[in-house]
Amino acid sequence: MHGRDCPSRTVIEVLANKWALYVLGAIRRYERPMRFSELRRLLDGITQKMFTQTLRSLERDGLIRRDVYPTVPPKVEYGLTPLGVDVGWLTNAVAEWAVENVDQIFAARDAYDEKAIETTKQL
Amino acid sequence: MHGRDCPSRTVIEVLANKWALYVLGAIRRYERPMRFSELRRLLDGITQKMFTQTLRSLERDGLIRRDVYPTVPPKVEYGLTPLGVDVGWLTNAVAEWAVENVDQIFAARDAYDEKAIETTKQL
Repeated sequence: MHGRDCPSRTVIEVLANKWALYVLGAIRRYERPMRFSELRRLLDGITQKMFTQTLRSLERDGLIRRDVYPTVPPKVEYGLTPLGVDVGWLTNAVAEWAVENVDQIFAARDAYDEKAIETTKQL
Repeated sequence: MHGRDCPSRTVIEVLANKWALYVLGAIRRYERPMRFSELRRLLDGITQKMFTQTLRSLERDGLIRRDVYPTVPPKVEYGLTPLGVDVGWLTNAVAEWAVENVDQIFAARDAYDEKAIETTKQL
């Protein structure tokens, strides 16, 4: 297994972040750079702070590009870099797997919870 | 985008968890059920609480199986369910992508940090 200092572990942690997956997925689905407010509207439940942090770390990791246009007020858009496009097939595969297997996972949870109740009754 | 109550979003969150990815990856790599202590040794940096929680939620979601053998003391092993095997190609793809792109991501980080220092100097 990857040790704590393994570089690829750092990268796995970039992707093991639901908000990062959602941001990448949203820009990917729109197939064009998006405005800050436009992107945020698609991310139901994210706080302003988490949204800003997610955008900053995706930009820092070279997965998204932040384009500032010198208009008044400045127009800021977020788009995918080539690396961000490349990771898209992965984020998409995660989303597809989720859709395909959601019923099975929910059934497993129900069975687990029922068994837990049974065990409690026996005690 | 997925709304806050979208079921598949719940499932994405199962996978957007680095420890869940590491546990699934470790059992997958060993190709056989593993003991609690054996598995934990491979997960450098995990706390006991997080390890127990991760195992419990993977079991509840039907991705791993907990087998208890009635020996003294009882032997407990964790193995992949068919669904856990199925998700393995995804967790493996995430790990492979990480290994392949780690240099590019680290270079992007350096460039970003350097630019941030430059900007600070100009202020």
